Amino acid sequence: MPQYKAPLRDMQFVLHELLNASDHYAKLPAYAETVSRELVDQYLETAADFCENELAPLNQVGDREGCTWNDGVVTTPTGFKEAYQKYIELGFPSLAAEEQYGGQGLPVSLGNVISEMVGTSNWAWGMYPGLSHGAVRTLEHHGSDEQKNTYLPKLVSGEWTGTMCLTESHAGSDLGIIRTKAEPQADGSYAISGEKIFISAGEHDMAENIIHIVLARLPGAPKGTKGISLFIVPKFHVNADGSVGDRNGVRCGSIEHKMGIHGNATCVINFDQAKGYLIGPENRGLNCMFTFMNTARIGTAVQGLSASEGSFQGSVTYARDRLAMRSLSGPKAPEKEADPIIVHPAVRNMLLTQKSFAEAGRALVYFLSLHADIVEQGATEEERKYSDNILSFLTPIAKAFLTETGSESAKHGVQVFGGHGFISEHGMEQIVRDTRIACLYEGTTEIQALDLLGRKVLQTQGAMLKDFTKIIHKFCEANKDNADLKEFVEPLAALNKEWGEITMQIGMKAMQSPDEVGAAAVDYMYYAGYVTLAYFWADMARLAQQKLAEGSTETAFYNAKVTTARFYFSKILPRTKSHVAVMASGNAPLAALAADDFII
Amino acid sequence: MPQYKAPLRDMQFVLHELLNASDHYAKLPAYAETVSRELVDQYLETAADFCENELAPLNQVGDREGCTWNDGVVTTPTGFKEAYQKYIELGFPSLAAEEQYGGQGLPVSLGNVISEMVGTSNWAWGMYPGLSHGAVRTLEHHGSDEQKNTYLPKLVSGEWTGTMCLTESHAGSDLGIIRTKAEPQADGSYAISGEKIFISAGEHDMAENIIHIVLARLPGAPKGTKGISLFIVPKFHVNADGSVGDRNGVRCGSIEHKMGIHGNATCVINFDQAKGYLIGPENRGLNCMFTFMNTARIGTAVQGLSASEGSFQGSVTYARDRLAMRSLSGPKAPEKEADPIIVHPAVRNMLLTQKSFAEAGRALVYFLSLHADIVEQGATEEERKYSDNILSFLTPIAKAFLTETGSESAKHGVQVFGGHGFISEHGMEQIVRDTRIACLYEGTTEIQALDLLGRKVLQTQGAMLKDFTKIIHKFCEANKDNADLKEFVEPLAALNKEWGEITMQIGMKAMQSPDEVGAAAVDYMYYAGYVTLAYFWADMARLAQQKLAEGSTETAFYNAKVTTARFYFSKILPRTKSHVAVMASGNAPLAALAADDFII
Repeated sequence: MPQYKAPLRDMQFVLHELLNASDHYAKLPAYAETVSRELVDQYLETAADFCENELAPLNQVGDREGCTWNDGVVTTPTGFKEAYQKYIELGFPSLAAEEQYGGQGLPVSLGNVISEMVGTSNWAWGMYPGLSHGAVRTLEHHGSDEQKNTYLPKLVSGEWTGTMCLTESHAGSDLGIIRTKAEPQADGSYAISGEKIFISAGEHDMAENIIHIVLARLPGAPKGTKGISLFIVPKFHVNADGSVGDRNGVRCGSIEHKMGIHGNATCVINFDQAKGYLIGPENRGLNCMFTFMNTARIGTAVQGLSASEGSFQGSVTYARDRLAMRSLSGPKAPEKEADPIIVHPAVRNMLLTQKSFAEAGRALVYFLSLHADIVEQGATEEERKYSDNILSFLTPIAKAFLTETGSESAKHGVQVFGGHGFISEHGMEQIVRDTRIACLYEGTTEIQALDLLGRKVLQTQGAMLKDFTKIIHKFCEANKDNADLKEFVEPLAALNKEWGEITMQIGMKAMQSPDEVGAAAVDYMYYAGYVTLAYFWADMARLAQQKLAEGSTETAFYNAKVTTARFYFSKILPRTKSHVAVMASGNAPLAALAADDFII
Repeated sequence: MPQYKAPLRDMQFVLHELLNASDHYAKLPAYAETVSRELVDQYLETAADFCENELAPLNQVGDREGCTWNDGVVTTPTGFKEAYQKYIELGFPSLAAEEQYGGQGLPVSLGNVISEMVGTSNWAWGMYPGLSHGAVRTLEHHGSDEQKNTYLPKLVSGEWTGTMCLTESHAGSDLGIIRTKAEPQADGSYAISGEKIFISAGEHDMAENIIHIVLARLPGAPKGTKGISLFIVPKFHVNADGSVGDRNGVRCGSIEHKMGIHGNATCVINFDQAKGYLIGPENRGLNCMFTFMNTARIGTAVQGLSASEGSFQGSVTYARDRLAMRSLSGPKAPEKEADPIIVHPAVRNMLLTQKSFAEAGRALVYFLSLHADIVEQGATEEERKYSDNILSFLTPIAKAFLTETGSESAKHGVQVFGGHGFISEHGMEQIVRDTRIACLYEGTTEIQALDLLGRKVLQTQGAMLKDFTKIIHKFCEANKDNADLKEFVEPLAALNKEWGEITMQIGMKAMQSPDEVGAAAVDYMYYAGYVTLAYFWADMARLAQQKLAEGSTETAFYNAKVTTARFYFSKILPRTKSHVAVMASGNAPLAALAADDFII
């Protein structure tokens, strides 16, 4: 069983050294007085302790036991409930919520950094409090004062949890065709009827009430995405004094048997004339949800980062211990009956792949999280707007690319263990199964890719792309005379230029047929992801070389950054070449076969 | 749940049209009189019926129930035992075995074609009879007459099954360090003691006896791979009259909880002074096993092909039915609330990827299977030698590349289903879990890659590579003036040339450091795999165009071949570019980081 160790040194490297988080918080009026480096580090240490000692030991328990459903009642795995109580006692649910409702008013970015640790140690558990965030955000942004006062304090404290009820069995990516109905009632409430599926944490035994945020259609609403409204539907009605009242018409019909995240209850939720309350304007439900979709998707990107980090930790430990064969260049541990497998280049390649995805993935996620802080708390409209553009552009990349590379890392984790990787007790195959969902929910990889290339790049005439490539360009310009960085800066600058050219070419083709966008999108997303991580690796190498030049005594730590950057540029970044060639071939090879002729 | 349909038309296309199997059998003295096209087709149809109607319905049952262990006794899932009885009644176990021992003396290739159907419909079940092949082969090649007479008839009939007991918990890829002991006894037998793990079909309730083939060390045997001998260790002793006698000192200590193939019992087998019989010469156990390692590895390559075929069938069906969003180029099914997802280029890309891997993978597996026939039954030593070289060269490619592409196909199968792909009842995630083992057992992908580049390519000074690239070269030369094939022949010829050049470059570097072989091997294997499948796609396109030109009425079938070849050349083959660039960067980026510095 892999022993999770929170990578605090690396987290601090990214947060404090690479991204200067202290300066960042100091510039934001909401945090300037309250958020110090000491406070951040203290939270990280508390979270690390909780994740290593409470959550990680429950990770395999949750997978093995799963949740059980009995006549609408869901029981979570042994220990999950108790761990949740401790999590509440430590104050984590209220961390980033508004102080007015009992929150601590701390930055979203700090929450995301802690999410990484929660996610790596036990993703299935982390989804219970994780889903509440969506409900809290929806209420904070769109709820009336009465709604906020009714629901937020208990959600913020963690006494209640929340869900997001979007998907129906026939409607996942395409929410425009949902059928759940909301009928207006005389008292101003709505009667909600319909069946929602894939509702994570939709029913469980960890909290005394569950607040569902539900997408449904009003009578006579326009067809498609413009006819969907958002409703609050509590599992138990809330009495005037805030206490939990009678049961509402909401019931968990069953839970899914699924590939992974067994510890989390994925529920079918049946609404049968359930009393619900409209939140936000009529028919604008999807727009309300879009306001925090970026943050939710970064949350899923964290799952990919977690898979890379968790599988890396497991396989490095194994690769140092496991003995098999001799190094091709002669015995490295002649006193043993064979060499540890970490001597073999193919094993090193897998470990360094995981490492390079985890560490640059962390940089990307934290970078985005700081921009998310600015979107919410930036001092000027201009700052907020700029950060919102960066966030909008990079979010589909982070979500799709980091979840796909997380899956790849998890695959390597199994492979490093050889046949033992296939055996459950070692915990490596669980990571593959748990993280597989990350490429599917919150918008599949393909949906993210279309969002990136279609909406973010082409619909803005490349403006959002330019905001980001300008950052890379400035970095390359600033470091072009640094001989030690040449191996990184030169290829990065070339790719940054190529990125623009490829975009132009696709844009031209798209004017002839919009299907060209669909044909290129996934490869474009991968291309963008590899280049984005290359930027972070180049910047980390720069910083590490600077620290070494300044005489840091942490030579092994900083040297490892430079070495891993070099690995990334030599062994991972060339993957862009294939994506470029594939994009160039366009939609024709995909379009030629009639649907009936795929199998004859 | 995916409904398996044996792809008989495509199997016959490859076997009869592409590879001219009838001519092939006619040239082999052992089959010239007995094996007709009619006989082959009849076997295929019988097997298709059995696989579609008996095995496929048990596939999810096996996954859900798994095997159960109780005090050394293993119970297989509901229906497995009964299906095995039917399999025996249909005569499948004896198909390729020698007639002298009750076999039907039919070609190995026919067995492999049937294995594809068994494997796609229910891989976990197929491993029970599948493992017997190894034991039968070992006995046929290395057993004494007495050993053959004692064990073969019941193994061949299927009344008994066999296992291969190689792995120990500390020794998987590195069999040189196994510890199981064999002590000579006064009666000429040996007392075998030790613990073997990962013994597939090591214990079960489907047959009255199990014959274990066990690797163990004699007292004072040389260290390493040259001190390992092979033993026959029956679960029950065999009486002089051939009946089953007392229990031997062999016991199943436990079964593994694992990622997939739940229906197959993966056993810890404890040998406690078990009576065993030496088979083959002392200390030459590994050499004995190598004699049929190619066939065993092709058997695993079939698992990859099966994963591609099975996930393709499942996802094509879903993609035609499932409605979500409109095509970017306008509604394709305006009468429905959304278009079927097969209209979206990203979905088509995944389906065509699966299809192109399945169909060219089939061509590669069948091609190798015919060469395996020649190795066993070729009329001349020269023919046998040539086929053995082709087989030795292509086997690690087939094993590693088809199992990796099988895993990739299975991943796409889940992805096409969106969130539903993660749910067990749809059967797509089971394929991911079941096929994951294929990249690990029978030599991991990394071991295959070293076998290919080190042993097969460099150790033969490129001779084996040349045998195969000559086939491609001849194909390109023969078709270079065919304008309709230019789009395939030109890039194929260029890659074939590049293949030789890359090999030269690695060979030069390897002279400086053998670690360069380890650093390049996996990318080299992928490169080789993509080019090999490109050859088969080009040849299938040639044949399809010829059939169309000859006026075949199966225009959709043959057109789909050309279209899929075009897809493969445009969207899959460019992956070679990345592998070329990665190989060029050599071992340095992998070697730089000290083992202690991977995590700091």
